[in-house]
Amino acid sequence: MTQTAPDAQPDTQSRLDLFIDRMVSQRACLDFAIAETAAQRGPIFELGLGNGRTYHHLKTHVTGRDIYVFERAVASHPDSTPDDHQLILGDVRETLPAALDRFGATASLIHADLGGHNREKNDAFARLISPLVEPLLGKGGLMVSSDRMYFETLEELPLPPGAVPGRCFVYRR
Amino acid sequence: MTQTAPDAQPDTQSRLDLFIDRMVSQRACLDFAIAETAAQRGPIFELGLGNGRTYHHLKTHVTGRDIYVFERAVASHPDSTPDDHQLILGDVRETLPAALDRFGATASLIHADLGGHNREKNDAFARLISPLVEPLLGKGGLMVSSDRMYFETLEELPLPPGAVPGRCFVYRR
Repeated sequence: MTQTAPDAQPDTQSRLDLFIDRMVSQRACLDFAIAETAAQRGPIFELGLGNGRTYHHLKTHVTGRDIYVFERAVASHPDSTPDDHQLILGDVRETLPAALDRFGATASLIHADLGGHNREKNDAFARLISPLVEPLLGKGGLMVSSDRMYFETLEELPLPPGAVPGRCFVYRR
Repeated sequence: MTQTAPDAQPDTQSRLDLFIDRMVSQRACLDFAIAETAAQRGPIFELGLGNGRTYHHLKTHVTGRDIYVFERAVASHPDSTPDDHQLILGDVRETLPAALDRFGATASLIHADLGGHNREKNDAFARLISPLVEPLLGKGGLMVSSDRMYFETLEELPLPPGAVPGRCFVYRR
């Protein structure tokens, strides 16, 4: 336990405020990353489907790239449920290494919203998956995450306009 | 089925875009309504707790007024779970009429996020609860809703800055 969590906020912010900041930052970072990698043809990996809103956002705004969703079990809105061949079901500790065998270092964009309520658990999960995510990105590929990741070789980029510091992170190979 | 739903959006908007518009509009309308009714001492009614984010927002920004939450079953974030005496558990078809007996026409602010994915169901629910909500508001009291309501005597107000038309509605007695 540190005295100040990395994303601690003044008490006057409500959970609604924090949530809006997170959603708005996520969209700003995704839109930036989609545009920044538009010339790349490598696949996009969405880690965690959840309700499917960010998958729907990717589907709406990306053309010419395959989008694969890594999820344990699908519980998304019907409008936002990927086709079976775009779904990679299972535990990411197994499916991410398998994706490296299948795709190599080709991903143009990887997005993860670990999204739990518990910051310590999110942080532990970020540490766990960082080394599994890192080798999947192709050259120039971007990783967008709602939590700070722990990469050895990727560069953390300045946030795009509209994103709130601490609510989203962008990394580039 | 109408050809154009009242809140139909261009196809280029993703579900993430719509969701952000809804959350941002909700906050803009709530902040407006909290300020507008700040001099009133009547209770605040939150219809539906859900995850508890808007309840937490009310709790963070309102002083000197009781907040009661109407919910069928509590499934909120631990930070945003009301004390038992602030919870009114049960079906709103019963708890809203019972609240009229208990509180009379005294509410300073009522907020409802019907929040389902199905617009037709939300609309049917809005029609169902409108006559149950309407008599609870005190003079000058405001109702904020994520769906259009069907009131006989309340005035629909122009949206405050930052709110997106069709994503939130404000009514005044």
